[in-house]
Amino acid sequence: MDESVFDKLQEECAIFGIYGHPEAGNLTYLGLYALQHRGQEASGIVTYDGNTFYQEKGTGLVADIFSEDRLRKLKGNAAIGHNRYSTTGDNCLENVQPLMVNYALGTLGMVHNGNLINASFLRDEMEAYGAIFQSSMDSEVIIHLIAHSRQERLVQRIVDACERVRGAYSLLFLSEEGLIGVRDPYGVRPLCLGKMKEGYVLASETCAFDLIDAEYVRDIEPGEIVQINEKGVFSFKPFTKVSPAQCVFEYVYFSRPDSRVFDRNVYHIRKRLGMELAREGEIKADIVIPVPDSGVPAALGFAEASKIPYDTGLIRNHYVGRTFIEPQQSIRHFGVKIKLNAVREILDGKRVVVVDDSIVRGTTSRKIVKMIRAAGAKEIHVRISSPPIISPCFYGIDTPTRQELVASSHSVEEIRKYITADSLSYLSTEGMFRAVYNSDSGENRHFCTACFSGNYPIPFTGEEIIQLGLFEEREP
Amino acid sequence: MDESVFDKLQEECAIFGIYGHPEAGNLTYLGLYALQHRGQEASGIVTYDGNTFYQEKGTGLVADIFSEDRLRKLKGNAAIGHNRYSTTGDNCLENVQPLMVNYALGTLGMVHNGNLINASFLRDEMEAYGAIFQSSMDSEVIIHLIAHSRQERLVQRIVDACERVRGAYSLLFLSEEGLIGVRDPYGVRPLCLGKMKEGYVLASETCAFDLIDAEYVRDIEPGEIVQINEKGVFSFKPFTKVSPAQCVFEYVYFSRPDSRVFDRNVYHIRKRLGMELAREGEIKADIVIPVPDSGVPAALGFAEASKIPYDTGLIRNHYVGRTFIEPQQSIRHFGVKIKLNAVREILDGKRVVVVDDSIVRGTTSRKIVKMIRAAGAKEIHVRISSPPIISPCFYGIDTPTRQELVASSHSVEEIRKYITADSLSYLSTEGMFRAVYNSDSGENRHFCTACFSGNYPIPFTGEEIIQLGLFEEREP
Amino acid sequence: MDESVFDKLQEECAIFGIYGHPEAGNLTYLGLYALQHRGQEASGIVTYDGNTFYQEKGTGLVADIFSEDRLRKLKGNAAIGHNRYSTTGDNCLENVQPLMVNYALGTLGMVHNGNLINASFLRDEMEAYGAIFQSSMDSEVIIHLIAHSRQERLVQRIVDACERVRGAYSLLFLSEEGLIGVRDPYGVRPLCLGKMKEGYVLASETCAFDLIDAEYVRDIEPGEIVQINEKGVFSFKPFTKVSPAQCVFEYVYFSRPDSRVFDRNVYHIRKRLGMELAREGEIKADIVIPVPDSGVPAALGFAEASKIPYDTGLIRNHYVGRTFIEPQQSIRHFGVKIKLNAVREILDGKRVVVVDDSIVRGTTSRKIVKMIRAAGAKEIHVRISSPPIISPCFYGIDTPTRQELVASSHSVEEIRKYITADSLSYLSTEGMFRAVYNSDSGENRHFCTACFSGNYPIPFTGEEIIQLGLFEEREP
Amino acid sequence: MDESVFDKLQEECAIFGIYGHPEAGNLTYLGLYALQHRGQEASGIVTYDGNTFYQEKGTGLVADIFSEDRLRKLKGNAAIGHNRYSTTGDNCLENVQPLMVNYALGTLGMVHNGNLINASFLRDEMEAYGAIFQSSMDSEVIIHLIAHSRQERLVQRIVDACERVRGAYSLLFLSEEGLIGVRDPYGVRPLCLGKMKEGYVLASETCAFDLIDAEYVRDIEPGEIVQINEKGVFSFKPFTKVSPAQCVFEYVYFSRPDSRVFDRNVYHIRKRLGMELAREGEIKADIVIPVPDSGVPAALGFAEASKIPYDTGLIRNHYVGRTFIEPQQSIRHFGVKIKLNAVREILDGKRVVVVDDSIVRGTTSRKIVKMIRAAGAKEIHVRISSPPIISPCFYGIDTPTRQELVASSHSVEEIRKYITADSLSYLSTEGMFRAVYNSDSGENRHFCTACFSGNYPIPFTGEEIIQLGLFEEREP
Repeated sequence: MDESVFDKLQEECAIFGIYGHPEAGNLTYLGLYALQHRGQEASGIVTYDGNTFYQEKGTGLVADIFSEDRLRKLKGNAAIGHNRYSTTGDNCLENVQPLMVNYALGTLGMVHNGNLINASFLRDEMEAYGAIFQSSMDSEVIIHLIAHSRQERLVQRIVDACERVRGAYSLLFLSEEGLIGVRDPYGVRPLCLGKMKEGYVLASETCAFDLIDAEYVRDIEPGEIVQINEKGVFSFKPFTKVSPAQCVFEYVYFSRPDSRVFDRNVYHIRKRLGMELAREGEIKADIVIPVPDSGVPAALGFAEASKIPYDTGLIRNHYVGRTFIEPQQSIRHFGVKIKLNAVREILDGKRVVVVDDSIVRGTTSRKIVKMIRAAGAKEIHVRISSPPIISPCFYGIDTPTRQELVASSHSVEEIRKYITADSLSYLSTEGMFRAVYNSDSGENRHFCTACFSGNYPIPFTGEEIIQLGLFEEREP
Repeated sequence: MDESVFDKLQEECAIFGIYGHPEAGNLTYLGLYALQHRGQEASGIVTYDGNTFYQEKGTGLVADIFSEDRLRKLKGNAAIGHNRYSTTGDNCLENVQPLMVNYALGTLGMVHNGNLINASFLRDEMEAYGAIFQSSMDSEVIIHLIAHSRQERLVQRIVDACERVRGAYSLLFLSEEGLIGVRDPYGVRPLCLGKMKEGYVLASETCAFDLIDAEYVRDIEPGEIVQINEKGVFSFKPFTKVSPAQCVFEYVYFSRPDSRVFDRNVYHIRKRLGMELAREGEIKADIVIPVPDSGVPAALGFAEASKIPYDTGLIRNHYVGRTFIEPQQSIRHFGVKIKLNAVREILDGKRVVVVDDSIVRGTTSRKIVKMIRAAGAKEIHVRISSPPIISPCFYGIDTPTRQELVASSHSVEEIRKYITADSLSYLSTEGMFRAVYNSDSGENRHFCTACFSGNYPIPFTGEEIIQLGLFEEREP
Repeated sequence: MDESVFDKLQEECAIFGIYGHPEAGNLTYLGLYALQHRGQEASGIVTYDGNTFYQEKGTGLVADIFSEDRLRKLKGNAAIGHNRYSTTGDNCLENVQPLMVNYALGTLGMVHNGNLINASFLRDEMEAYGAIFQSSMDSEVIIHLIAHSRQERLVQRIVDACERVRGAYSLLFLSEEGLIGVRDPYGVRPLCLGKMKEGYVLASETCAFDLIDAEYVRDIEPGEIVQINEKGVFSFKPFTKVSPAQCVFEYVYFSRPDSRVFDRNVYHIRKRLGMELAREGEIKADIVIPVPDSGVPAALGFAEASKIPYDTGLIRNHYVGRTFIEPQQSIRHFGVKIKLNAVREILDGKRVVVVDDSIVRGTTSRKIVKMIRAAGAKEIHVRISSPPIISPCFYGIDTPTRQELVASSHSVEEIRKYITADSLSYLSTEGMFRAVYNSDSGENRHFCTACFSGNYPIPFTGEEIIQLGLFEEREP
Repeated sequence: MDESVFDKLQEECAIFGIYGHPEAGNLTYLGLYALQHRGQEASGIVTYDGNTFYQEKGTGLVADIFSEDRLRKLKGNAAIGHNRYSTTGDNCLENVQPLMVNYALGTLGMVHNGNLINASFLRDEMEAYGAIFQSSMDSEVIIHLIAHSRQERLVQRIVDACERVRGAYSLLFLSEEGLIGVRDPYGVRPLCLGKMKEGYVLASETCAFDLIDAEYVRDIEPGEIVQINEKGVFSFKPFTKVSPAQCVFEYVYFSRPDSRVFDRNVYHIRKRLGMELAREGEIKADIVIPVPDSGVPAALGFAEASKIPYDTGLIRNHYVGRTFIEPQQSIRHFGVKIKLNAVREILDGKRVVVVDDSIVRGTTSRKIVKMIRAAGAKEIHVRISSPPIISPCFYGIDTPTRQELVASSHSVEEIRKYITADSLSYLSTEGMFRAVYNSDSGENRHFCTACFSGNYPIPFTGEEIIQLGLFEEREP
């Protein structure tokens, strides 16, 4: 199903790695399948059998790309895999990860979740010294930095490379030296370690562990490198310590609710976001309905806290495909009806609270509100279980430009008018952190809130500020 | 998503027709898309532009089959379409409907939802007189009967043909004489009429109308034929009246909850099924969870009636594909984990009521119960919002043989043991009809309950009883 | 390679059948491969293993359609296959033979080489009695006639059917009763019998026998039916005897030169056609070159008889595909240069005799002459090893309409001017038969020459004459 | 058609480039189509429109890869293209040329015909300094050498790179600076310059010029670099002059007979090779037949010189595909019969001279001789229009190992016995050069004859001799 037709921020990638299991390729396939929600554009797997590296890539969904035939070719007991949403780089096979190269130390496969802010600067510099780039992915500079390092061990070269790049990165490497996992010093993107009867796994989210019967061990820490080989799991913390800045939006929308992310269960946080939302403003209404499926936990929390009955006023079509040919004679709310249908028998004559996790451009919310009203709702109160999104993300989330973010230039009242709701309110930042930490303080201790606040935890150079348009846009 | 990996009865088909709209092909595509839940194996559309008939067919999902290119070829302002689950006939393109033939009166396209019980008898008879069959679908005999009729008008020939066949059929025909819809005298399968600004539509369920902004007019009545052409909508009731036997399982599972079927909203009935279920047996528990998505309305009803909090203990993967390569080293509950994951943080230590709509073989229920228990549930109480399924359907539902229906040969207690639940109960037939009619009587007035009761409303001949194995199986 | 871009008449089909060999499917595939020159649009194979019939069809070349996978599915020790060029019927899979149907006597597969002249009349008649046609191929009426026959044995039903149809047909049937081959009473199209260590084969041409090590036994005679089953080969001659009218164009162009057709070697006849051509008109020239490859034997014969040296002035590209994107800025002689290139070093300053087998529209000949002249030839003398084609074929050859046949309305001198040759001459009909019979008489004893003479050996009814446009066209 | 099933040496590549024509992409497609005989595995085209580079690649035949759709994307008035046979590197898309990279000076596309003998040495060296290789093609080192050069202009960097590599290379580069063509100092592989009404072209053989109406201007000289841009054609000769060593096998087999290669017409040389062959040994026979199609010109020359009549005893199937499923019950001469059939009517009872261009392993010759004898030939005299092949090629021809070359370890008499011919003789080296230079001297002035003589004109280092196995193999 293509969330991208919807008005959502998009996580760009999922990564998965495994070492020491005789069915490494198959399990990576299953891991990527469980992480499909983090990227539906393309996927790839590289395996290693002690002698040879095997690679299969394709565009589309995991279950469509990896036929039995292709899985059979992925021999070996170590593997890494990647789902891609698409951020930098075009949609050609060269831009599908894993990246795999031959370099001085042998063969190296890499997958990357995140985004580098100084990639183009580094790329220009390395090209001046004779480097040749094959893809347009920013991730490729990491590979080049590793190849150019003069260190003898791969791990040392990775440290060299990471000290040159700035940005968000959770990385997995597959090489003759085993499986290596890296989380950037800010820990922006998640990465967790699991254990199987045979072997170890690394994945973006724990839902991948559940599917393959792996046991969650712990999160890789911000700034930590783990190397897994036949001797066990080794941990390194070579980087200067900084204050973590984990992506809070993983809780708001990206991660699967059954995952444990940044060492907390996502479903519970999401439900508490709904509860906090209810507490922040009383409302008189007949029913609470979610925008399915992402709004379900918050709506349940909202209903519980507000004592307004929960119901299913919007039915989701489970067969949503990529493209839809819209008739020339336009159909009301077409874009949203392809995915959702309003149940008149539930909504007719009611005062309805609609709970959603976020508003990006506002276009879909507007269609949903109109569709609910067309189904007879008397009042429509939109409640958003996160603060307004005002700034783009440079750390691996596909956000539209600042201009397109409706909340960057419009007040809540203006947005309410635009989406034609009777009332609209967002969760406060304090409310969000009360839910995240399950405490009353509402203080942010180690999360990145750049999209809600415009405060970017990883410092930009002057040049980057200009390049990224941060300067002008911030003017007044 | 492939429900077939799950333990569900399967509706075999969706049908859709439209007359008098300049984008008939496009709207049929959208109608079939909205009806995708009734058949995911194959789809086809035939259109007519006053001169030529156009046909496009394929296997797979509607959104994958009909590219912009193929839709562009489907010219004309009248069309019929079909989604197929697969009952009789192999999965080759010849068995994908619409059937389209040339015969004495010109060209004729037909789609069929249902199943004929005397098809093979009629087929043998017609072959003896020189008829040639191209497909292995029972629907093809209807076409042959029409071709062999000596009546002058197509509608008369259709009456001739329907008087020869016995079984369940909702039919649509597209011909030079317009669009014709037929519902068998028992009205087993649904068929409803809608109206657009331009033209009329016929569809299995009203959710197809919602997507294309068509207005629901009424159900086609059991035994009614409607002919739609440039002069309007004409109704015929040529058949001897019998007591209707509409499929009650449309309410239990098949239809989309946002549809109006047999003139009632499905979601409401489904929620009331859950309420009745709660009323029929008190239970002490901490949470009520549905088996998503089909169990959601009944679970909400159950929670409301029982005052036990509703929660989402099973998370559904939205990217379920057709085939999955299971690792050789078997994974616990693999078949069900591909689609569902249990949220430990919600279930751990809890007494859990799990609400599902039906149990067919029991295999999936068993896996779900085990998965919930592995996630820490203290007690698991399975509640089924319909009576036990004890007999196969011969009217268009893909049921396993009687032997495979766990309830045909096992008591509720035996099934409980098999699925390893702490308790199990089903809704009573009376409870079901209390929910359906929203009344206290619990009387069945015009529904087929063969799968729950073994009482088949359409009489079998002696030969058919033997052929269908009804005789032996009923023995002891 | 697509001869169809060239100015040639096209044979429409090849047929092949085998009985009693454990690898019937594989050998049919090879037989069709050897007969590829008789049809490149589509191919199909049906096999029978004593219980089940298996069928595989596709569009394109034999070697592309039948993967190892598909061949493996074609089990059994009896098979029939078909290559199609396309005459009647559109290019959809329903129009790809073998036709396979279920009828009163069981299952029946059929392949047809030829064309029926009363097919549409019979079709209308049968539709009036309730028959349903699935394809637009005239061959389908034969199947319907068989299904409607009241005879008990298949062979008798085939006789019944053949007595109703008129036209050209070599047929193969595969059924529970074995393999049956039929050649129409006029014997228009070829069909020959071969023997293997195990089993028997039937094919359009003997080149199919050579590839699979089958031994040529004899031609099936005009009006003969052979039935091959486990008891042996049985021959029937149930039809009223008529004077044979075998297609002489098989010798001129269609058949492969290494085949034995109508009991004579094609290569030898083709070379003698060139010799007779040389004898019919002396010419002073420096070299004789063929239009490759079909003109090679006649050119060698011409060179031998005229004592003018033979050379290869036109080089053929062996990788000709279906479609070519011609640049917008037109290229001289593009259509012909895609396939042939003139060798300046051979042609420059020479008086060149160009030998080709036939001229249909004249367009290609014109391009070839111009290309040869552009390569420096001083004189160009075109010699055609058959008489002018003046009339369309109604017996299975894809001829353009009479208007497009350049020789139907233009004198030889007019054609010469059009193709810009210095001289042009055709072989006389007498010369053609001197070559065919290798005798001096020049008399036609049992060949159809309708395309050269307009004398159609199979009588038309008045209605057919009007339908086929024979009446009007013959007017002045 | 797949020559590779046959016993032939294989040219590995064709290259084509164009500058200054508005349909550069289309014409490159046509050029590659005309050069298809030089490589059938894969093809690619890169175009440049002054702003952007466009790239399309695929495996298979040119006419199958480049659909109208893909050609439309190849915008611009400059282009390079490549057909690949496959020598070094696996058959994945990364190994399909053109290579296209981003480097310090911008974007660079390159195609290469030939083979480098020090590629793996250079590769190791560059990897040690941090270079990353994407393909397994030796051609990629040239790109890296260019990227690492510190020169300012691309042409200077190309000179730098060429001074580091040793081996055979005809190269084309497409960049912002225009189209650049390079021929190595020995001129091993061909490259010629043509002129169109608009723009210039560079191609491996002139047959590509004929198809697109380009006029042959001259060969690029050994050691010459030409740069073509909007200002015209500029020539550079920066390398130390060495004695040329052009590949004589281009005349024997690789090039198309209608091409001008190394400034001579191939067909004429090939015919003279047959004449010399006839002169070197008289033979009494009834007919001379070629092994089609490559043996045709030499057979015609042989017939002319020997006065023995030429005929077509072997008929070629024009629809040879890639793979053939051989029946389990083996068929005599299957491998060769897939492509050729012997005409009994021509061969029966005859003393036959069979002319072929070369023998590599001898396996196909053996099958052909046996097939001809099975067709009734009384005597079979095999005549080869080139000397015995005794040594592998390291300059871009796909030769088997020395062990597989039948003539490297067997006398002519031993080979005769193996192929079961009544006599066998090869053309002498002197005879070959008499034919090439059309003079009586028989002296080799500027050709590489390594495959016939073992004399490699480009000196090897000691390490290379060991690597390439030259040392051991030369032992006895």
